[in-house]
Amino acid sequence: MDPVPQVEAITAATGFTRDSAVDVLAVEPGAVSLRMPRSAAMLQFNGHFHGGAIAGLADHAAGAAATTALPAGRIAVTADLTIHFLKPASGASITARARTVSVGSLLCIATVEVTTECEPGPVVCAIATVTLRAVAAPA
Amino acid sequence: MDPVPQVEAITAATGFTRDSAVDVLAVEPGAVSLRMPRSAAMLQFNGHFHGGAIAGLADHAAGAAATTALPAGRIAVTADLTIHFLKPASGASITARARTVSVGSLLCIATVEVTTECEPGPVVCAIATVTLRAVAAPA
Amino acid sequence: MDPVPQVEAITAATGFTRDSAVDVLAVEPGAVSLRMPRSAAMLQFNGHFHGGAIAGLADHAAGAAATTALPAGRIAVTADLTIHFLKPASGASITARARTVSVGSLLCIATVEVTTECEPGPVVCAIATVTLRAVAAPA
Amino acid sequence: MDPVPQVEAITAATGFTRDSAVDVLAVEPGAVSLRMPRSAAMLQFNGHFHGGAIAGLADHAAGAAATTALPAGRIAVTADLTIHFLKPASGASITARARTVSVGSLLCIATVEVTTECEPGPVVCAIATVTLRAVAAPA
Repeated sequence: MDPVPQVEAITAATGFTRDSAVDVLAVEPGAVSLRMPRSAAMLQFNGHFHGGAIAGLADHAAGAAATTALPAGRIAVTADLTIHFLKPASGASITARARTVSVGSLLCIATVEVTTECEPGPVVCAIATVTLRAVAAPA
Repeated sequence: MDPVPQVEAITAATGFTRDSAVDVLAVEPGAVSLRMPRSAAMLQFNGHFHGGAIAGLADHAAGAAATTALPAGRIAVTADLTIHFLKPASGASITARARTVSVGSLLCIATVEVTTECEPGPVVCAIATVTLRAVAAPA
Repeated sequence: MDPVPQVEAITAATGFTRDSAVDVLAVEPGAVSLRMPRSAAMLQFNGHFHGGAIAGLADHAAGAAATTALPAGRIAVTADLTIHFLKPASGASITARARTVSVGSLLCIATVEVTTECEPGPVVCAIATVTLRAVAAPA
Repeated sequence: MDPVPQVEAITAATGFTRDSAVDVLAVEPGAVSLRMPRSAAMLQFNGHFHGGAIAGLADHAAGAAATTALPAGRIAVTADLTIHFLKPASGASITARARTVSVGSLLCIATVEVTTECEPGPVVCAIATVTLRAVAAPA
């Protein structure tokens, strides 16, 4: 399957990313960028994006990046995720850029940089490292 | 402020937890349990809870647990979070039980166990460790 | 192979644990305890155990615990490790107690508690979570 | 204090790095590179560098990088460390290159890339992210 429609299909089929209006910005084998716009359901009490929104977008981008690097018929599912929050995610959107740094037949590792789009420009608000298992894709 | 209404107020004031109908199950100093019911906006494409939902609930519970262990006027904000996904979160709800393992004047560490409520009983689906900064509460 | 001599053999065959005089305290399937005595080569400039000594002992204990939980002919090697340092490791020794929380045919997850033996009693100085791959044991 | 002699002094005063013959390769504010040569006490049973050696070198480099970015009289001590092992560390040495990605008055975050020097060239064998507390330097 072509990687762009594959990532768009998974993102649209996933309630978490569909209901939060996540857009697929870029896809290449081993690298995926996703953007989530600001919406009430994804915010912290102080008006910044919630840690769960940021971690969820990073997780989804890492899974998509690793899946596009795997052979057809295999998908990547997260085994563990570590995220460091560097700055408040206070912009109009957050963007997660994931890329694989290791792709094995059973295990992949991806790093993710998350920016928030503020005035006058984007700010890195979080970085994550994700370990993923490669499994057979569901039918 | 009494810790129970404090955690309930923060959870209700936070879009991420309010819109996903998170309930406060239990609060004591340094320990908070929160439950999130199944809803489409919190699911993965395969019908399990999304990693972002699980990480977000764990993050919120850790922040609440650490805040209840701090002196009045201080709140805990997440510096970093590591989460390991042990089993699919396929039940009717997920519950995050957070407790502090270290409380300092500037830094707290909390561990979180997340279960999913299945038949015939709850299953541990994730464990997390969270490092939090103690900061002055907003007015 | 009986798990006790297996863990003792690996610990003796490993320069890092042999040269730092690590003792095997207890072994059961999925749970291993190892102790490292204080020695100059394992200390920080302030006389506490170095983070590398603590992380290395935790890593070794997690690998041993996961290996004892796997079928014969398989060993566990670390994919990633997260460690939180709670207190200075200032005692006469450090002890790592690892236990598996998930054992799959390809991936295991173990948690580790590290104590340091002080007067009047042991103190938890670090906690770790380790993801390990199960691979064929070398001949 | 000039950052180069400061890092050299701390590395020489620390048993873990002194006894394993760690060299300071480069120092600038917020970035430190350290190299550890192969020696029996730092190896795994299979002849690769042990996870504790790799994590310890990464931890030390991160602490040095953060300390050089802090005001005089402050040093950085590790709160938590996450490390992902990408390849066997089978070369003649390992080199950790740490740089700060966030420097606050109380908390710093650094990323570390660890290479191992093989034929025909260095290979990235691990990546780490480290959260550090800034504290008053001991007298």
